[in-house]
Amino acid sequence: MKHFFLHVVANLSLVLIVFIARDSQADEGFWLFNAPPVKQLQEKYHFTPDAAWLEHIQKSSVRFNGEGSGSFVSANGLVITNHHVAADSLQKFGDVQHNYIRDGFYAATPTEEKRCYDLELNVLESIEDVTSRVDAAVPPGAKPEEALAARRRAIADIEQESTKATGLRSDVVTLFEGGSYQLYRYKQYTDVRLVFAPEQGIAFFGGDPNNFEYPRYNLDICLFRVYENDQPVHPKHYLRFNADGPSEHDLIFASGHPGGTNRMRTVAALEEKRDTIIPALLATLYRREVLLTAYSERSLENARRAREDLLYVQNSRKVYDGELAGLLDPETIQQIATRENSLKSTTAKSLNIGDTYAQIQQAVSADPANTVNFLFFEDTHARSSVLEGIQTKPLGFNSQLFRLARGLVRATEERKKPNEKRLPEYRDSSLPAIEVALFSEAPIYDDLEIVKLTDSLTSLVSHYEADSPIARNLLKGKSPHERAYELVTGTKLKNVQFRRQLYDGGLAALSAAADLMIELAQAADETARHARQVVSEQDEVANKAYAQIAKAKLALGNGQFAPDANFTLRLSYGLVEGYAEEGKPIPAFTDFAGLYQRAEQHENRPPFELPPRWAEKRTALDVHTPFNFVTTADCVGGNSGSPVINRNGEFVGILFDGNSQSLSWDYLYSDKQGRSVAVDSRAILESLQRVYQLPALVNELTGKTMN
Amino acid sequence: MKHFFLHVVANLSLVLIVFIARDSQADEGFWLFNAPPVKQLQEKYHFTPDAAWLEHIQKSSVRFNGEGSGSFVSANGLVITNHHVAADSLQKFGDVQHNYIRDGFYAATPTEEKRCYDLELNVLESIEDVTSRVDAAVPPGAKPEEALAARRRAIADIEQESTKATGLRSDVVTLFEGGSYQLYRYKQYTDVRLVFAPEQGIAFFGGDPNNFEYPRYNLDICLFRVYENDQPVHPKHYLRFNADGPSEHDLIFASGHPGGTNRMRTVAALEEKRDTIIPALLATLYRREVLLTAYSERSLENARRAREDLLYVQNSRKVYDGELAGLLDPETIQQIATRENSLKSTTAKSLNIGDTYAQIQQAVSADPANTVNFLFFEDTHARSSVLEGIQTKPLGFNSQLFRLARGLVRATEERKKPNEKRLPEYRDSSLPAIEVALFSEAPIYDDLEIVKLTDSLTSLVSHYEADSPIARNLLKGKSPHERAYELVTGTKLKNVQFRRQLYDGGLAALSAAADLMIELAQAADETARHARQVVSEQDEVANKAYAQIAKAKLALGNGQFAPDANFTLRLSYGLVEGYAEEGKPIPAFTDFAGLYQRAEQHENRPPFELPPRWAEKRTALDVHTPFNFVTTADCVGGNSGSPVINRNGEFVGILFDGNSQSLSWDYLYSDKQGRSVAVDSRAILESLQRVYQLPALVNELTGKTMN
Repeated sequence: MKHFFLHVVANLSLVLIVFIARDSQADEGFWLFNAPPVKQLQEKYHFTPDAAWLEHIQKSSVRFNGEGSGSFVSANGLVITNHHVAADSLQKFGDVQHNYIRDGFYAATPTEEKRCYDLELNVLESIEDVTSRVDAAVPPGAKPEEALAARRRAIADIEQESTKATGLRSDVVTLFEGGSYQLYRYKQYTDVRLVFAPEQGIAFFGGDPNNFEYPRYNLDICLFRVYENDQPVHPKHYLRFNADGPSEHDLIFASGHPGGTNRMRTVAALEEKRDTIIPALLATLYRREVLLTAYSERSLENARRAREDLLYVQNSRKVYDGELAGLLDPETIQQIATRENSLKSTTAKSLNIGDTYAQIQQAVSADPANTVNFLFFEDTHARSSVLEGIQTKPLGFNSQLFRLARGLVRATEERKKPNEKRLPEYRDSSLPAIEVALFSEAPIYDDLEIVKLTDSLTSLVSHYEADSPIARNLLKGKSPHERAYELVTGTKLKNVQFRRQLYDGGLAALSAAADLMIELAQAADETARHARQVVSEQDEVANKAYAQIAKAKLALGNGQFAPDANFTLRLSYGLVEGYAEEGKPIPAFTDFAGLYQRAEQHENRPPFELPPRWAEKRTALDVHTPFNFVTTADCVGGNSGSPVINRNGEFVGILFDGNSQSLSWDYLYSDKQGRSVAVDSRAILESLQRVYQLPALVNELTGKTMN
Repeated sequence: MKHFFLHVVANLSLVLIVFIARDSQADEGFWLFNAPPVKQLQEKYHFTPDAAWLEHIQKSSVRFNGEGSGSFVSANGLVITNHHVAADSLQKFGDVQHNYIRDGFYAATPTEEKRCYDLELNVLESIEDVTSRVDAAVPPGAKPEEALAARRRAIADIEQESTKATGLRSDVVTLFEGGSYQLYRYKQYTDVRLVFAPEQGIAFFGGDPNNFEYPRYNLDICLFRVYENDQPVHPKHYLRFNADGPSEHDLIFASGHPGGTNRMRTVAALEEKRDTIIPALLATLYRREVLLTAYSERSLENARRAREDLLYVQNSRKVYDGELAGLLDPETIQQIATRENSLKSTTAKSLNIGDTYAQIQQAVSADPANTVNFLFFEDTHARSSVLEGIQTKPLGFNSQLFRLARGLVRATEERKKPNEKRLPEYRDSSLPAIEVALFSEAPIYDDLEIVKLTDSLTSLVSHYEADSPIARNLLKGKSPHERAYELVTGTKLKNVQFRRQLYDGGLAALSAAADLMIELAQAADETARHARQVVSEQDEVANKAYAQIAKAKLALGNGQFAPDANFTLRLSYGLVEGYAEEGKPIPAFTDFAGLYQRAEQHENRPPFELPPRWAEKRTALDVHTPFNFVTTADCVGGNSGSPVINRNGEFVGILFDGNSQSLSWDYLYSDKQGRSVAVDSRAILESLQRVYQLPALVNELTGKTMN
């Protein structure tokens, strides 16, 4: 299961040349829809994607904001994604009586379809190159902070004009380390309704132990229907559902929103990640996993409440464990250093590429204490952050109420500024997403909030020491538990109406509220904003250097390359292919028979316990139906829910994970063992037909009905 | 569940005067058998323990080395302790086919009794004051390292002479911060056989969520029989089993081996604990809990293998969480600071008590980096360590094979030195314990060793940074996983015969072996020994200062006090008393009816799942039988298994835990809510009779048979 969220160091591009020189066969890369890998596909696979094919895939693809990917799969607005991408929405529907995550859901009629609290979907409508306009805005010789401000202003203007002109969400996207700026326009959908979810027991069969492993047996899917004006949309572009699935060695494509990769990173930057950032994040993830597990064991209702948080934490922990293990393998660093040295020796002396690397080293090691401040006070994305809505996740304040408080405090402060001077996530073009998050009716549980805030304040106080001014200022002479208790029970922010009043009322309303949680967010904001400012300026220096490296690589002229991932739509490609592990072949496909066998090996105990329906329907199924399969197509967190597409542009599966060897794809792609993992379209149909017995849904997917 | 092991800062004494002045009613204290609280017992409870009563309790009490407490309870050598104290032995009996921890055990005949691999029991035979001889050995004006060496030499001589003269294990025990040295002589038993263990499901019903909580429903008992010359021993002193249990408000006693307390600690020392030591230990415990949980979920056999490690880690994590929460409450520090200030203002100026506090502050903050080195390389007991056998637990090397390697390396090196110059745990008097540990036949699992060593090497490398000389020297250019794999699969230390050869063969044999794990232990030893030496010298300075504080408190003449705990036999006393929590009364006793009710609330799911036998026998039991009860008697980790004794010196229960409010008893006793938790003798008899149907065992315990 791959969540996009806790990834570190996003927004920077991948340069493939050196790698391609080493291994011309590798199917690496998150390709832009306006710069697809036509040459590679023609040479290697004799396939030429034309404009219509690309437009069809692009406009059938859907971004789940803050979560992952998906695609339209019916004429009537059905969208398919992963169960784990949908789980946040499923969690929010639940209460003491209803556990949709555990038990699944199906809406037999349109009126039973459940509207999500705060889910926004985006479809990429157009891409426009705005590089020259952004570049022109920066005066030559500008200092880093001036350049940053000038660029921000230009970007804000472009976005605002576009939104005004088209009514579409308009984001200027930085690619190739600032070598390119592109205006992405999205159609936004905010009325999204739940149609079908399987039980988590089959969606996430094998749980944490099997996460990022293969062979797998997961029906990790969920179906929503998109509405506009209270009617289902009828998208012009949607993927036809191919009932025959893929075959081994088939060329396939994945179209989705990889969250972030670090393949451009220098050795110095990866060492910072290895020695400072990942250890800090892992320490927090370990404590949260223990905390949430202990909380969950106290009662069944606790377990339901904390379920999504816990899975999210376990998943992130596994990602970072895997990334760190790769970075601690001296061969990894050696391989990347070899590339650096090769670039240095082949690049024209006039480009001073050695200095460029030194600038990056200087930027990443300039102020490690500030990097840690950034993690504790601002967000878990160290360096170039990709903030979406109020989804800032400071390690020291693990509380939804705190996030709401920060969103209100910042929205109040930022909206007073001219659009171009605001933090990017509070620009006019982004305010709808902020409002969706701020006014969500999703439930908030006091007890869980207190437990999480107590723990994160404890970690903050342990890091800065209890007697430090920073800790005293936040704790106000109380123990972490006492403070968390008074904050959570004392705030009125659980009331959505109250949040609207504060949002509309400006600073006066905020002050008049005298709300403890608002005051905490205000007290933490100076440190948080300062840390962010310092990181942004370091990034500005580093990015400029990275742009030079990118230029140097381009100058070698070895071929095309794709930029690092940044949660924008990308196309990757590869083969359906098994691999070998410790000398044993791992076949590309699993089937239902393997599912039942594995459940038996574990005496049907959690997390290998089959949902009752699956135990009952064993004989009704064709157990030889292919269930999951692996491909060499590039993927990282954020790709979850990406449709797997054949040459004809049809849906043949859905990505939901990578194997453990793919975890180092964050910084180093290899198809020796690394694989992305998908659910086969045949397994989806067989399950809906024989296990869930939903002929209407099957007919809609296979195009037999068009209601 | 309270394990003695990860406690921090042991071996130092508790001074009660100030506290007594505040609350003359508190039943605080771990009292020495040669200085019992006679005055308090007479004044408050009109009870006078005479010499015979004390001798009877003392010699009926048993120390489980490295684990906890117990007592003789039959004329035929039966010893009762907690299931969780015995679990390490139960774990070692198990294999793929046998899970004695989960399923329990009963030996119906003597031949079925299972001899433990490496369990040593001690009974305290005599106490002798040797203060003047130890003090005389230190020349006036000696530097810390000289004083330390001189004292060690004197202590080693005393122990060696005593062992030679009596054949008894002879330990010189430091009390009152060096205000007193006492020679404790123990009878050692190494042939200990398992007779009865209940299922862990009832011994530890409620698992981690209920650990350190009350009300409780745990049959946390286990019965062994002690042998000598292949025959059961017939101890002169054993506790008569009282079948009527205690009543509310009864005066009771607990006789056991509290592992360590920190009640003498100054504010500066507690701040070091709060800001440096506990955070480092908790970070390790969090990651180990996650690691072992993930490992356990992979298969049922994995779960069995890791069970004891996991429970141990969870228990320790809960202890430190609780201690840290107390230390982060500003009121705690305030209360202790007030005592310090009161002592400073009432003490004669000539004693310079202010300087004394400053010396401690200087000692505890002199070299925090070394303190962390000590934790990573030497042991989790920061400051004054109480090492027992090879039970050194360095955070960076979590591996039984590493511990064996270190034991062999150090045993070889230390035995070359004169007895008095050795590390204390390698003196002649301690070698039998070292040998029991080194030559244990207990199973070692490669896969679990690799997982644990990979993780701990990763944490070590993350702490020191991958490119540091320390990390490079230990990792040898490999990733933590690769290195752990080659170490575990490459060593021959799993072979007991090989270990004996190395132990007997001296340095030549060690070198000739060219064993990778031995070489790792050698490579780590310089850093480890240096860190330990520095800590010992800091302790020497601090202890001298503490001795002065103790003297100052004594000079106030307010009354008697008991020293801090140090895993030697102590007597505590108190009442069977309920308490109030958030305004609700918590009764002193629970019963079997409550057990069944709680299982139902949790739908009989783990860890609230009843063992099948307990579900079946529900109607056979008298559900109103008292099950667990709470007392105000002082207890900390190491007290587990302490008999609860009435005025007549009879067994009425067995301590197995404290509630969460007792976790801060480590540094601050309060009987407002803090309680120790025990199994009632009535519950033990009712279970053995009606659930397990073991009349022979019941008859032996109640003295109806004397075979």
